[in-house]
Amino acid sequence: MADWTNLDQLNSYQALAADSTRVDLRAVLAGEQGGQRVRDYTVPMACGLAYHYGAKQVNDAILEKLANLAEEAQLAEKFAELYNGAMINTGEKRLVLHHLTRGQLGNPVIADGVDKREFYTEQQKRIAAFTKKVHSGEVVNAAGEPFTTVVQIGIGGSDLGPRAVYLALENWARAEGTLKMEARFISNVDPDDAVNVLSNIDVAHSLFILVSKSGTTLETLTNEAFVKDALNKAGLNPADHMVAVTSQTSPLASSSDYLDAFFMDDHIGGRFSSTSAVGGAVLSLAFGPEVFAQFLAGAAETDRLSATADALHNPAMLDALIGVYERNILGYQCTAVLPYSQALSRFPAHLQQADMESNGKSVNRFGEPVGYPTGPVLFGEPGTNGQHSFYQLLHQGTDIVPLQFIGFRENQGGTDVLIEGSYSQQKLGANVAAQIVAFACGKEDEDRNKNFDGGRPSSIIIGDRLTPESLGALLAHFENKIMFQGFIWNLNSFDQEGVQLGKVLAKRVLAHDTDGALAAYSDLLGI
Amino acid sequence: MADWTNLDQLNSYQALAADSTRVDLRAVLAGEQGGQRVRDYTVPMACGLAYHYGAKQVNDAILEKLANLAEEAQLAEKFAELYNGAMINTGEKRLVLHHLTRGQLGNPVIADGVDKREFYTEQQKRIAAFTKKVHSGEVVNAAGEPFTTVVQIGIGGSDLGPRAVYLALENWARAEGTLKMEARFISNVDPDDAVNVLSNIDVAHSLFILVSKSGTTLETLTNEAFVKDALNKAGLNPADHMVAVTSQTSPLASSSDYLDAFFMDDHIGGRFSSTSAVGGAVLSLAFGPEVFAQFLAGAAETDRLSATADALHNPAMLDALIGVYERNILGYQCTAVLPYSQALSRFPAHLQQADMESNGKSVNRFGEPVGYPTGPVLFGEPGTNGQHSFYQLLHQGTDIVPLQFIGFRENQGGTDVLIEGSYSQQKLGANVAAQIVAFACGKEDEDRNKNFDGGRPSSIIIGDRLTPESLGALLAHFENKIMFQGFIWNLNSFDQEGVQLGKVLAKRVLAHDTDGALAAYSDLLGI
Repeated sequence: MADWTNLDQLNSYQALAADSTRVDLRAVLAGEQGGQRVRDYTVPMACGLAYHYGAKQVNDAILEKLANLAEEAQLAEKFAELYNGAMINTGEKRLVLHHLTRGQLGNPVIADGVDKREFYTEQQKRIAAFTKKVHSGEVVNAAGEPFTTVVQIGIGGSDLGPRAVYLALENWARAEGTLKMEARFISNVDPDDAVNVLSNIDVAHSLFILVSKSGTTLETLTNEAFVKDALNKAGLNPADHMVAVTSQTSPLASSSDYLDAFFMDDHIGGRFSSTSAVGGAVLSLAFGPEVFAQFLAGAAETDRLSATADALHNPAMLDALIGVYERNILGYQCTAVLPYSQALSRFPAHLQQADMESNGKSVNRFGEPVGYPTGPVLFGEPGTNGQHSFYQLLHQGTDIVPLQFIGFRENQGGTDVLIEGSYSQQKLGANVAAQIVAFACGKEDEDRNKNFDGGRPSSIIIGDRLTPESLGALLAHFENKIMFQGFIWNLNSFDQEGVQLGKVLAKRVLAHDTDGALAAYSDLLGI
Repeated sequence: MADWTNLDQLNSYQALAADSTRVDLRAVLAGEQGGQRVRDYTVPMACGLAYHYGAKQVNDAILEKLANLAEEAQLAEKFAELYNGAMINTGEKRLVLHHLTRGQLGNPVIADGVDKREFYTEQQKRIAAFTKKVHSGEVVNAAGEPFTTVVQIGIGGSDLGPRAVYLALENWARAEGTLKMEARFISNVDPDDAVNVLSNIDVAHSLFILVSKSGTTLETLTNEAFVKDALNKAGLNPADHMVAVTSQTSPLASSSDYLDAFFMDDHIGGRFSSTSAVGGAVLSLAFGPEVFAQFLAGAAETDRLSATADALHNPAMLDALIGVYERNILGYQCTAVLPYSQALSRFPAHLQQADMESNGKSVNRFGEPVGYPTGPVLFGEPGTNGQHSFYQLLHQGTDIVPLQFIGFRENQGGTDVLIEGSYSQQKLGANVAAQIVAFACGKEDEDRNKNFDGGRPSSIIIGDRLTPESLGALLAHFENKIMFQGFIWNLNSFDQEGVQLGKVLAKRVLAHDTDGALAAYSDLLGI
């Protein structure tokens, strides 16, 4: 059994905190030794990706201390406990099994009376079989016509991850000729969200996926009613147009309101469910089950690499450790995720949930307050767009924000134009290379308004091309990074008690059971 | 002439910093007095909106000190200097005239040899006349068919603001029957952005707007080439499908490559250009010039209110002051903007640029380093989506993030469903009311994992419905808030020198004029 200890109780952390060395990026990245550092501070990831941390404020001595921390915090042992089926989510008394959706890293995990790897693969097979019927025209609408659009109804983890993945692969699939159905997403309880999506699709040729683990999520059931209303108004039978993704014990599981139901379970948190049936149904319908399988294979390759005990050869672990160093030793509060890939436009929004909901906590896994900062605020937008927006503050603001860049050597669409001697893809790559160096090295100018102090740290993950495999690898990298950081901070990264109070109070407002400030705000909002 | 002094040199700021009172939100919002506080700490805004700050950590004494700060920092005088045409953007030696696009607050402003209010209204009239020709079928494609889609090609301020406004009104316009053309946006130099947009529209019926003040923005000219390529491949003449929005001195201004050109000038920064021709062309084409005029009228109403000297009756000024109190006295680094309106899905991304690019600076308007924090990191997503994502950290994370909620009493689409005794719009409102109280008041629980400390401050702007007028009022509120904060921090909020270094280095990469770290990153990215 691993030893679950607060970060500030670890000798290796105290050694790190006692080291007053601060790496000056301008110095270490200057000249030819700077180029060598960039090449050296590189660790291969899955699927041809690599994690480059030459522009992070670390040196060999700090890296050694971080590796010691990984060892003392037993990161590899804890991951092994997790994938072997220990009850890591102590608060909710659940296992943490999203890795099993894409591979068997350790021993068979038996829970709820079944082998969970078999359970997840069985759902994948059922989804694949259903998908083939939709694509082949065996499952059609009442008029005998094929479905052309798939609409996911879900919120939080049932929305952000699958949406980010869909957008990441839509253009790739179009270029590869494997876009089977267009996908749309309805999430917000704001009625304008459903109205807007429904007014932009052809409901008669749309298949809706209702995603709710419990079958009781307010937003999702409300939006289901919206959709059923629209189908009824179009003279269509909702039961011909809907499938469910839910737990086997939910009221949706065996309802005749759905063409079929695919299952998830309580051992996979919403924000880690993109590789479960939650992502599987919509992504298989959109791209075909083979593409979804490639995505899972990429994630599985990352998972295997993440099981490596040596922190310096385990990119997710190393990324986690450097993030903790920046948060707890250097005192940086935020992290920006900046993909130089328009296809990853909503990937930062997904990571925002995955990271902030997992590690935005003040008590350790035993419910005791911790005395150190935990998860950072995470935000981001794709480059080059962000360069024309908030990068001003990142370059010259009064606070330092560590940056996580992502870039690819090739574009997805296969179409490009040569302007002023370079292709767009080259311009994109040139910009991210330039930004890393500009942030790290700065540039002195007598006009202080045009002066760049530098010393602003970043890492970059680089791959050949954003494909289902490399996207799966990228997603799992961040999932595992978040998991390792939770281990280091001694948090339970897999519950989310912080969302409960708002739900309770919202119910009181709707029941008009309010007084004082809550009544006043309800009045102002016309409830 | 106003006196431009650093914040920490002002007596009123020193008095504020010396006041060690910290307002305990749990105490002041408890019981019936809490309800009274919510009702009292309210200030009317333009177009029926109101700014409610009962859940901010202020009391009457602190508000008085903030009002003194507004007076000593001469916020009203500085705004008057700005709208009367002083050279407020000292670094670039430019005036700051975006307010003139929607009204004449002070004296006529003569620059570049013309009355600038007349210049901006002339462009609005030219856009309206052109728009009417498109909508009436006088301007058509080569086949004599009407244009049905308008595509904006631009980046940064030419993209984020107009895109956020379009999305904010698309559903409203559909419900009102005034959606004339659908709008799409191409921004990123990533070739996949243009490829994706072009593969989802019918280019033969699309009108493209090229937006570049200088006519030299790399991303925009590259994407123009992409579009021209697509038009040529479809056997269409690009000059029949494109208009330009640019400055009169740019090479685009009189080019025969465009059906027409509409003008902006150097006195309006990109991030403040939504009410200029940059937003005017695409929004007038999408919704009709009358709707764009309503949007401007809403902004003008805010501007007039923002000229009020009394800080406690000037919501933009008060919002700015409370933000400075949170940043400089309470030490909070971030701000989250959380609209409970799906239509405002990209409004936070626009504000992220407007705020972080304006005030993310370390030197004052004279180029001297400042010794205090300036602009915060700003991020946000619509509620209720965010509740199922990053709110965990906002409720229970180790850092406090001040929150800016936005809510409306009615939805845009006019369609709603009754589920479990309430309409979706009521659920939406109930959720935001509940969140404000949950963040501020918390809830004690013996299980520390389920404990909410509270004390997390928020404000909310509430209106009846998101319409062109109220959206214009909302946009101008934030623009003016940012301006006032720049005055308080003694910054030039209207330049963006922080974006320059990256541009210079990117050019070096493309010219293969690199060594050391820059060469290493270029190699890794395959340039």
